[in-house]
Amino acid sequence: MSKELVFGHKNPDTDAISCAIEYAYLANKLGDDVEAVALGKTNNETNYVLKRFNVKAPRVITKAKPEVDSVVLVDHNEAIQSVSDIADVTVSGVIDHHKINFTSAQPLFYRAEPIGCCSTIIYKMYLENNIEIPSNIAGLMLSSIISDTLLLKSPTTTDDERNAVPALAKIAGVSDYEAYGVEMLKAGSDVDSRTAEDILEGDAKSFDMGGKSVRIGQVNTVDLDDVFKRQDELENTMKSLIKKNSYDLFLLLATDVLTSDSELLVLGEGTEAVETAFNHKLSNNRMTLPGVVSRKKQVVPPLTKVLS
Amino acid sequence: MSKELVFGHKNPDTDAISCAIEYAYLANKLGDDVEAVALGKTNNETNYVLKRFNVKAPRVITKAKPEVDSVVLVDHNEAIQSVSDIADVTVSGVIDHHKINFTSAQPLFYRAEPIGCCSTIIYKMYLENNIEIPSNIAGLMLSSIISDTLLLKSPTTTDDERNAVPALAKIAGVSDYEAYGVEMLKAGSDVDSRTAEDILEGDAKSFDMGGKSVRIGQVNTVDLDDVFKRQDELENTMKSLIKKNSYDLFLLLATDVLTSDSELLVLGEGTEAVETAFNHKLSNNRMTLPGVVSRKKQVVPPLTKVLS
Repeated sequence: MSKELVFGHKNPDTDAISCAIEYAYLANKLGDDVEAVALGKTNNETNYVLKRFNVKAPRVITKAKPEVDSVVLVDHNEAIQSVSDIADVTVSGVIDHHKINFTSAQPLFYRAEPIGCCSTIIYKMYLENNIEIPSNIAGLMLSSIISDTLLLKSPTTTDDERNAVPALAKIAGVSDYEAYGVEMLKAGSDVDSRTAEDILEGDAKSFDMGGKSVRIGQVNTVDLDDVFKRQDELENTMKSLIKKNSYDLFLLLATDVLTSDSELLVLGEGTEAVETAFNHKLSNNRMTLPGVVSRKKQVVPPLTKVLS
Repeated sequence: MSKELVFGHKNPDTDAISCAIEYAYLANKLGDDVEAVALGKTNNETNYVLKRFNVKAPRVITKAKPEVDSVVLVDHNEAIQSVSDIADVTVSGVIDHHKINFTSAQPLFYRAEPIGCCSTIIYKMYLENNIEIPSNIAGLMLSSIISDTLLLKSPTTTDDERNAVPALAKIAGVSDYEAYGVEMLKAGSDVDSRTAEDILEGDAKSFDMGGKSVRIGQVNTVDLDDVFKRQDELENTMKSLIKKNSYDLFLLLATDVLTSDSELLVLGEGTEAVETAFNHKLSNNRMTLPGVVSRKKQVVPPLTKVLS
């Protein structure tokens, strides 16, 4: 088989970067020729993880076709979140845990499970294929699960994650995964050092909801004030991003990783759809969403329902 | 978990019917409440298989929502091939081996592999979950693989099928699977007793190819003359089906199951796309396709490419 590239979504988070590395190692062990790459630079949290487990960040690509004919998608499936020339290559495999919006001209390997973290699926694939998990790969898997589930507190968390975390912590040599997790989440939530555009766009994803172009960013913090003391600056940057990219709606979900609550900042056309979706009124373009931490499970589905 | 229905595609073939029965048995063993149903009556081949292994045909449904909120799709994923009210229910799982054209509002369990038969995937799921395969379920799996791969001769056949067949034959108590397979394929290819509409529509699937509505039927036979001695009758019925359902193109792939060659009959608008796709000229609305037996692998992809 000729060489393939594997990558997670644009604006990569810890799971997107880790899944690519984890998958490439597994596929190469099973006899394929696969290189892990990324569709963007690594964020602060991921940098902390890569340094902790002594793993090199994958190189960043903007196009796949100049290098390969065939790619594997991890932690995403929608073209809008994938490499810019995805239509020009064959997708030979998808491993994901998101809603599906996918079309292919040929049968392919597709594995999705409605669980908290894509790295959990790849962890299961190592077990099913009897491939020993190296310590640093276990560290990436552990960190991804902590990141995606906010230390197993997100409603997306399943028994698969709860079972995987202690097993992976042991292989990775992490004696207290809760303490490690808090340090890791804190490392990823240093808002003060980030530009407004990075806060908005650093973990943003685009969604087509009933013909509307909806951009949803998420920022983790240990203090929501660190985000909203800069509300004017954030709104100005949001407005220019909306204009530049013709978004209909822009949502920023600011999540307190210690309390597991969020504050939503919303600009654009038709913000009443957001009010309907969450059954709250916006005040000063904001609403408080207690207990909401998951864009995928708690923000995208109700908004898709209202807009479709 | 509340009750779910599982079903294969419309115009069910042996694999579509068997997968539903196989999946329901597995899911119920694992603690779910799942009933196998069908989206149409069983064909001659499937009737032969069900009688041979003493299994009752699933009841036929036309709508899902009156009975359940949630369904599992086997051996298909495209809405156009599924239950009429598929948009009104949640798809909680898909197990399939076809190209993908699927959208969901929520994450779900999705397992697709680019292999010869969907029953092979479910066979692997029994093994992975350590569920013992009853003799009659093994008979259905064996028959589905023989049916989908024309006794392991179709180019869709993979090592998964080649490994599964002898193992399943043993469990099913079939001492000579080749002899059984020829009898089964013959039982499904009695063209003389079938109406023209049944030959055209009995195993037909609809495809959206670049905005064109393309209907592709397939009929297995042990003598292509049995089909084409009725060409006038078939063309007249094709024309009225095209008119009634606003198809752009209608293809009938008549496959000789003993020689593994096919003859294509084509009517509709823009038949030159078919000529381009297969690099052959139509003569008397027909072309010979030596070695072509797989609609999925040898007909749909080249035609999709030309029309998209």
